[in-house]
Parts: sequence; C-alpha cells; structure tokens
Amino acid sequence: MEILVAKSSGFCFGVKRAINMAGKCASGEDKEGGAIHTLGPIIHNPQVVKMLEESNVYARKDLSEIDSGTVIIRSHGVTFEEYKEARDKGLSIVDATCPFVKTAQDLVSRLAEEGYQVIVAGEKDHPEVKGLMSYGGSRVRVVSGIAELLDMPRVAKLGIVAQTTLRMEKFEDIVSFCLHKASELKVFNTICNATSTRQTESAALAKEVDVMVVVGGKNSANTRRLAEVCRAVQPETYHIEIASELRPEWFEGKGRAGVTSGASTPEWLIGAVVQRLREISPK
Amino acid sequence: MEILVAKSSGFCFGVKRAINMAGKCASGEDKEGGAIHTLGPIIHNPQVVKMLEESNVYARKDLSEIDSGTVIIRSHGVTFEEYKEARDKGLSIVDATCPFVKTAQDLVSRLAEEGYQVIVAGEKDHPEVKGLMSYGGSRVRVVSGIAELLDMPRVAKLGIVAQTTLRMEKFEDIVSFCLHKASELKVFNTICNATSTRQTESAALAKEVDVMVVVGGKNSANTRRLAEVCRAVQPETYHIEIASELRPEWFEGKGRAGVTSGASTPEWLIGAVVQRLREISPK
Repeated sequence: MEILVAKSSGFCFGVKRAINMAGKCASGEDKEGGAIHTLGPIIHNPQVVKMLEESNVYARKDLSEIDSGTVIIRSHGVTFEEYKEARDKGLSIVDATCPFVKTAQDLVSRLAEEGYQVIVAGEKDHPEVKGLMSYGGSRVRVVSGIAELLDMPRVAKLGIVAQTTLRMEKFEDIVSFCLHKASELKVFNTICNATSTRQTESAALAKEVDVMVVVGGKNSANTRRLAEVCRAVQPETYHIEIASELRPEWFEGKGRAGVTSGASTPEWLIGAVVQRLREISPK
Repeated sequence: MEILVAKSSGFCFGVKRAINMAGKCASGEDKEGGAIHTLGPIIHNPQVVKMLEESNVYARKDLSEIDSGTVIIRSHGVTFEEYKEARDKGLSIVDATCPFVKTAQDLVSRLAEEGYQVIVAGEKDHPEVKGLMSYGGSRVRVVSGIAELLDMPRVAKLGIVAQTTLRMEKFEDIVSFCLHKASELKVFNTICNATSTRQTESAALAKEVDVMVVVGGKNSANTRRLAEVCRAVQPETYHIEIASELRPEWFEGKGRAGVTSGASTPEWLIGAVVQRLREISPK
C-alpha cells in the first residue's frame, strides 16, 4: 500500500513555537527555578500534555492553582486580566501566545482606543476569543453569526477582527451584514490561512486515496473539522489519536492511504502512524 | 378609480436642492451677470431641462462650451479637474453637488491621503463615479462587480466607498471579496437610502393596485429601474414622461391606480399625471 502524507500536516507555526518554548522551559534553558505550569493544556493533544508532565511541566486550570514559579501562556493567548494577575503574583511569564493572535489582540485594543465599537467574529467560549475580547473592554461584542447582529443598534463606527481560525465564509457574512449597522467599518482580516490551507490540501489528498487517516486529539476542534472535510470527499476517513488505534481491516485491499493531522498533532505521532501503516501493509 | 401616489415619489433631497439652486440663479438671486450654464443636463428629465432653457439656463456638454458667466454643478458632482478648470476660467461656480456625493468625494480623498488603495464600487461611466475617482488620483480603481477584482494584486490596505445609488447587495459582494485582497479594509457605506426606500415603497404600492404608472425621464437610469421593480410585482406597469402619454384603455375597469416617480421627476409632472388620471376616470 502506498502511503501519502499531506504536506501541511503537523503543527502550525504558532503551536510549534509554543511547544518549543515549553520544551526550553522543561530543559531548564529558560527556567528561573520553581515549578513550571501551563495555563490550560498547552495544546489540545493529550499525548503532548502527558509528555510535558513527564518533564515536570503541568497544565493548570487557572491562576488560582499557580502561586509561584513559571507560567507558560499557550498559543491561544490569555485575557488582559489574567496576564496582569500573573504579573502581580510575581510569576515568571513565558508568553507563547501565537504572534497572529497577539496581532489580533493589539488590533482590538487599537480599534477600541480609536473609538470603534469592536466586533470579534468567532466563538465566545473559545480561549482565543476570550483573550481578544478582554483587550477592548466594554466596547467589544463577540459574534458567531449574523443572527446575533440583528438586535444590535446602529453605530457610527464599527471595527471588526476575526478569531484566527474562523472560516472565511463566516467572516464574509458577518462583515457584509455589518455594512447595515454602521456607516464606517474598519476590518482587519486576522484569519490565519494555515487552517484553510491544511483543509484544502488534505481534501485534495483524500480524493486521491482509497482510505484516509486523520491524526489528532479528539478534543481538538480543528482536527475534528479536518476529519469532516476529508470525509466529505472520502467516506472511508478515520480520526485517530495514536497509531495503536489503526485496525488492519480498514486497509484490506486498499492501494493508497492518505495521512493528515490537525494543527496540534506532533510530527512523532504522525511518524508512528506511518510506521504502523507500513507494518499493516508492507508492500 | 382610486388614485394612490407613493409617499417617496418626486425629487430626492440632492436633486431638489440642485433644482432650487438653479432656480435661484435663473431668477437672478444668485446671478453675478452673464450667461448661466449647467455642466451636463441638471437632471435626467427633459421637461425640467426645457423649462430651465426657457429661463435662460442652458445645459452644456463640457467646459469647452462655457467661456464666461455662471456654471452650475449638478447633483452628481464633477471631477476635481473640471472644478479646477471652471475656477481657472474665472467662471462663477454654483456648486449643487449632492451633499451625500460631496461626502463620498471627501472620503475618497481622505483614504488616498491615508495610503489606502481606493475602490469605488459603482459604474465607471456614471458622472458621479467619474467625479469620485478624480479625488483619489492614481490610487483609485472603479469596480462594478467582483469579476473586476479577480486580477487585482493583494495590497496591505484597501479603502472602499460606493456610488450613492449602488444596490446594497452589490456593495456587500464587493466588500466580501475585498477581504481576500487586503489584510485591512476601511469601508464607508456611502449608499443613499433614498433609492432603496423609493423602490420598496413603490413595489408595495404596485402590489395594492390594479395598474401602476411610473413617471420620469426615459433617460433616467433610476426611473427605468423603478419601473422594473414595479413591473415585477404588477405586470400592468407603464413608464411615461408626461401626462399626455397616458392612454384611457390602460385604466378601463380598474379600481385602483398607483403613481410613483424617479428621483429626477418634478412634483408638477406628477401632479399633471394625477389630474389626467382623474379626467380619464372621474369616479
């Protein structure tokens, strides 16, 4: 069986950077002594979180669980208030906020300062969005779709940014509708194309193969969506977290298998999946 | 026959203002001596243009035909270069540019100064759009639909304004597409709602009556579009310029007739149509 791995598979830029920063902390390069914590799991991948625990980097739910040592801010970023609290507590902060998310945070802040009512297009419960909101104070409204804009009063100036992983079509809909809600719009397209590139490339690969394997955390929204996208063109698509979940019967009589993964899946997990596939079907 | 006139029928704000200014010129209130000219017909209504000619206000094609006296700039506005030429020629300028168009001109100018590549959403041959373009110099591109954006290179900052009579749906499409062409958009919704209000109200009236009359210049784009909108809900819709065009057979056996008109149709033409309808069907 021929095994083809999607080119854009593996960590996105922001996740790779955050994991590297956590790794440096664990190896003591950045360590200022004391315990090392991440605020929330560093990525939505249980295997990576477990590996970091083995290096004494612990995922904590919130700052009430961290009283000293180093806190690593994950790629999603944190709220302005959490950042301030960590600083006030005297913690050593390693800020691994994705630079694209950081840019979006700065834009929210700038738009609010310039007097715009700010719209963050995204999911209000997502950690990245909670962070974005906090940078605009009372001038921010989170909108996941136009239904939530219907009752919004008209304003003079609307500023709009997007959750970095938002679907472009959704952003287009929200921006279009906002044209009815203000005479001036200032829109920053803060969508990172890593997600859409990965989806497009993976769907193209899924079309070329007889069976598709999507590797990544079951708790990772972007991996689950990636599996959906692949399944739409290749019904024989399997979402797994680790190589041992692969079942030989999925690959019986198949000529080509495709492999892709979410933004939070490390290379070594993908490598293990490819190796297991070779064992299942050596030819 | 009952006769119902659309509430929003007649001159729009900008046209009313321009006609009043031309009227004052003709009556000598604003006259500084010399001949009085309009740059292009003051509105797309032959009856009004003829009436002004009788008061010695002449429509000229361009500035080469005007060497002295007063020039009235119509509600559509003119290009920056035409304005300058009129001033350099020492003409007395009566600027009847619609204030909404003037605002759009100022916004094009401001966006270009702030370093935005400027998009004017509208029809490149329309006099208003020619005027708008001229205020942004080489940084302006006119776009009537997304097909014209396909080959546009990506830029950092796009500024967008609309021809004041553009359809909102078209503006939404263009703005949405521009999200793919720049990471920052500054959008001013310069669409005047007079046109859409008139269309909505006239369509509602056309639905309630047995026959619909649309009054206005055959050379007026907004009147022709208004007739189309009414015809879609009331197939018995007639587009006329003057009362004498009305034919009694159109109204035979009809209980209710509706009357509406384009933005460039004066009240007295509408009044004459209503009077003629009463003569045709007195009850």
